[in-house]
Amino acid sequence: MAARAVSEGLEPILGEALSVLDHGFVRIVDYMGNDAAIVQAARVSYGPGTKSLSEDAGLINYLMMNAHTSPFEMCEIKFHIRLPIFVARQWIRHRTASANEISGRYSVLPSDFYLPAAEQMHYQSTSNKQGRGRPLLPKEKKRILEMFRSDAEQIFAHYAEALSIPNEECPEERGLARELARINLPLSTYTEWYWKIDLHNLLHFLRLRFSPHAQYEIRAYADILLGVVRRWVPLTYSAFVQYELEGTRLSKTGLEVVRRMLSGERVTQETSDLGKREWERLCQALHLDSE
Amino acid sequence: MAARAVSEGLEPILGEALSVLDHGFVRIVDYMGNDAAIVQAARVSYGPGTKSLSEDAGLINYLMMNAHTSPFEMCEIKFHIRLPIFVARQWIRHRTASANEISGRYSVLPSDFYLPAAEQMHYQSTSNKQGRGRPLLPKEKKRILEMFRSDAEQIFAHYAEALSIPNEECPEERGLARELARINLPLSTYTEWYWKIDLHNLLHFLRLRFSPHAQYEIRAYADILLGVVRRWVPLTYSAFVQYELEGTRLSKTGLEVVRRMLSGERVTQETSDLGKREWERLCQALHLDSE
Amino acid sequence: MAARAVSEGLEPILGEALSVLDHGFVRIVDYMGNDAAIVQAARVSYGPGTKSLSEDAGLINYLMMNAHTSPFEMCEIKFHIRLPIFVARQWIRHRTASANEISGRYSVLPSDFYLPAAEQMHYQSTSNKQGRGRPLLPKEKKRILEMFRSDAEQIFAHYAEALSIPNEECPEERGLARELARINLPLSTYTEWYWKIDLHNLLHFLRLRFSPHAQYEIRAYADILLGVVRRWVPLTYSAFVQYELEGTRLSKTGLEVVRRMLSGERVTQETSDLGKREWERLCQALHLDSE
Amino acid sequence: MAARAVSEGLEPILGEALSVLDHGFVRIVDYMGNDAAIVQAARVSYGPGTKSLSEDAGLINYLMMNAHTSPFEMCEIKFHIRLPIFVARQWIRHRTASANEISGRYSVLPSDFYLPAAEQMHYQSTSNKQGRGRPLLPKEKKRILEMFRSDAEQIFAHYAEALSIPNEECPEERGLARELARINLPLSTYTEWYWKIDLHNLLHFLRLRFSPHAQYEIRAYADILLGVVRRWVPLTYSAFVQYELEGTRLSKTGLEVVRRMLSGERVTQETSDLGKREWERLCQALHLDSE
Repeated sequence: MAARAVSEGLEPILGEALSVLDHGFVRIVDYMGNDAAIVQAARVSYGPGTKSLSEDAGLINYLMMNAHTSPFEMCEIKFHIRLPIFVARQWIRHRTASANEISGRYSVLPSDFYLPAAEQMHYQSTSNKQGRGRPLLPKEKKRILEMFRSDAEQIFAHYAEALSIPNEECPEERGLARELARINLPLSTYTEWYWKIDLHNLLHFLRLRFSPHAQYEIRAYADILLGVVRRWVPLTYSAFVQYELEGTRLSKTGLEVVRRMLSGERVTQETSDLGKREWERLCQALHLDSE
Repeated sequence: MAARAVSEGLEPILGEALSVLDHGFVRIVDYMGNDAAIVQAARVSYGPGTKSLSEDAGLINYLMMNAHTSPFEMCEIKFHIRLPIFVARQWIRHRTASANEISGRYSVLPSDFYLPAAEQMHYQSTSNKQGRGRPLLPKEKKRILEMFRSDAEQIFAHYAEALSIPNEECPEERGLARELARINLPLSTYTEWYWKIDLHNLLHFLRLRFSPHAQYEIRAYADILLGVVRRWVPLTYSAFVQYELEGTRLSKTGLEVVRRMLSGERVTQETSDLGKREWERLCQALHLDSE
Repeated sequence: MAARAVSEGLEPILGEALSVLDHGFVRIVDYMGNDAAIVQAARVSYGPGTKSLSEDAGLINYLMMNAHTSPFEMCEIKFHIRLPIFVARQWIRHRTASANEISGRYSVLPSDFYLPAAEQMHYQSTSNKQGRGRPLLPKEKKRILEMFRSDAEQIFAHYAEALSIPNEECPEERGLARELARINLPLSTYTEWYWKIDLHNLLHFLRLRFSPHAQYEIRAYADILLGVVRRWVPLTYSAFVQYELEGTRLSKTGLEVVRRMLSGERVTQETSDLGKREWERLCQALHLDSE
Repeated sequence: MAARAVSEGLEPILGEALSVLDHGFVRIVDYMGNDAAIVQAARVSYGPGTKSLSEDAGLINYLMMNAHTSPFEMCEIKFHIRLPIFVARQWIRHRTASANEISGRYSVLPSDFYLPAAEQMHYQSTSNKQGRGRPLLPKEKKRILEMFRSDAEQIFAHYAEALSIPNEECPEERGLARELARINLPLSTYTEWYWKIDLHNLLHFLRLRFSPHAQYEIRAYADILLGVVRRWVPLTYSAFVQYELEGTRLSKTGLEVVRRMLSGERVTQETSDLGKREWERLCQALHLDSE
């Protein structure tokens, strides 16, 4: 009888609820596989080898660098997660995963809703259509938070009321059907699900959601999940940081710009053949002044 | 140069918005394939044959009866759909499809929300945890609808207010970031998406959502989609009705009950070895009195 | 710190190679979840309950009967499998799974090939285009097996020869490129892979491959996998047998035939409105004489 | 009634069989969508805009650069393809697609097999475990091709023989069951399938298979498919070349090397902190001498 693959880093936090936002959490329910399981599956495809830790790291780096993704699918992880519905709606767009969510048709939803922390409240960005600009002025923060809170409390009070309206003609039946009573609840309402995903698809989730372009509230979850990956599969985590998170992509034209710079030419946005946004992104990656 | 496969039934309603609920619609944007395209793909696997319409129907029936599902994947359809967010949340659980949804981070959402029609308002069922029981008493209907409407209007007014709060220190930046302003919007808010799916997965969607167990509001959409299937691929529609929608499943024990009945035995729930719910379902399918 | 879910039935055979066909095997490498994990995920959606074993069985039956499949996705299993390439080609059509296969570009493939056992050799069925008819006459069995064996041995000898052709101009480079040398190998060649799948999709695989319509050689593997499911998740296995393997589907017309029979009418194929094949299938399910 | 989206570039070659290898082809059966359909779906998510061609190109570039992939899923294409089985086995690893393949259980497979062109025959690479090295010496080419050809012809002759063995006891049943007779056929045997995929997944296929790391024989198909993309969706094709095919990825360390070079430092492999293979790849991308 063989033993199952164990992750020494993950075992100590199995079952623990890691807090996120004001009422959310991420709890690791179960997992399958570890760095060695990735190596084991890869060696079926690419041939055996000695088993030193440094060779394992080398193989995992090679897989990550060359987008040989299938061995990373050999690891699975299952979470119990509590999150606001508007975050859940972004999350569920990742289709290669399994989810079982609490149903507002079967159950009465608890009256927990998300209120942003004051330091997370910003004006609409003027340069980025989907982003946040400067912090809200303090008095505006206060006003908006009060409005958010009192609106949500009112809706939840009315939800409870709808769930208890009497039926004078048939007293044992009471309350509006749950599936209807909940339709006015705010998108900030907390929901819960079990969510299971393989490591390859979890890394893809993190690539998109642990990004400055993602909304703060889902990034807060991605941040926790990235920490879980670091504990679970440390070699994969290092390769992911090296080849994905802290690497960059160059377009054909971006690559030509770098070649011209390396050959001594002074290139400006005007002579680069790049759009303004892509030029700025390139300069930022290269630690150059974009002016 | 060959011509593309055309569906005579679907062409006349291409681009038309078919109304659903109070502010929703389903619009067919584009499609690929027809009944003949299914037959064509199946004949690669199962060998050629003559091409009469009756033989095409026979082959499609055979595929449906035997769950040879891959030829149905050879047809695709793309819709533009407007639907309440709580319906969209059930809908998106069907993962083998593609969706592009309006983003509340980029755009200001229009202030349209779903209000149930009076005849769709029921008490919570006492026998079915996820279902609706008797109609609400008229005065309760009125009270709940008023509450739903005034709550939703208030929230949308506050949404507009948050989107326009001034920034005295930086007047060109104004309004709470859209991605935050929308978090209190109700689940009844209408959203929109482009949704593309293959015929096999569309039939699976209909199997689950055109069902008495589905919530009325998503069934209203499934009803429209089923009508689209009838126009698009009439042979497939007939086979689907014959083998899926109006057929039934018998469990091992259910099958034994039928055999015993056919051999002349009188079977009751007690002697059937079936639970109460499954017994009732069986009697209903067989048009027998369950008492 | 919580403990991972364990399957008492599966643990004793973890890592063991279970033999299939002449040179194949199925080895369980790892797994995640058990019957209780399915119940746990389902209760998030459908509400809590007491935790007795009989209630767990009832809930699992309910999920299976109503095609509430997502909780079964919460369990995963990973196999190491050795199988002939023509079986692997049927197998890989199940797309919702992960596989890492030995690569004939990287590695020299071992010279193992499948030879059918004498009792598995049949004439082409005359009634079933994809099936086997009567057993081959003994002298034909012998002749075919000899032919299969000597052909395969010759091809493998030539494979070895191609892999060692010399390069007189550059002696350290020798042998035809592996990716080309293997193109003449027979479909009976054994390959190997790691294969990971969730329980829902494994049951779907078994529904199609543990079926009299499946080719014997893949059924031999499905038979082993079904035994693994029985040990791994015994409650799910029972529900699967009850609602899937030993149940049946009735079409709309088939259901009407049963209703007519139950009301006392004598129905024949001619009066049934069913095709010959569907009529025979119905009679067989009902233990009736189809004549 | 609206008209379906049309691709002017694709229409003229609809239905044409484009030759690949010695007996293969790619034939476009049908398609859905064009560049404008991608833009249309994207504008649902990211807001409307004017509709000039240059703005469409800009939006498609933006989507490609930022890996906003879902709008590319809104286009579908369906091919009829003839290809050797060893190529089909690599091909089918792309799971997000639909396929209907000719079945060797139902049909007798035609005796066409792939023989490499003389200029494609190389020794095993000594530096690349999966690659080809120097061209085979002419006499070795001749010897190997003769061996490949005569072996394959022998196997197909024996296949025909097995399919016609008599049954003296039951003369109307003759021939070994097709599903068994084919098990010795070579991996070079041509098969056929209908294959349908969305544009996003087709681009992913091309990213992996139109690559110097892919085997020549599948690259030959990828080359044709890339030409189809160029005709079908020219704006997407340009963006794909710009941001994917002719761009590059830099790892964290690779990016640091570029920054150091740009600040005037002379970096060698030893001081670069990169492995030999990654260093060479970086120098090649930057048009630098790796010595």
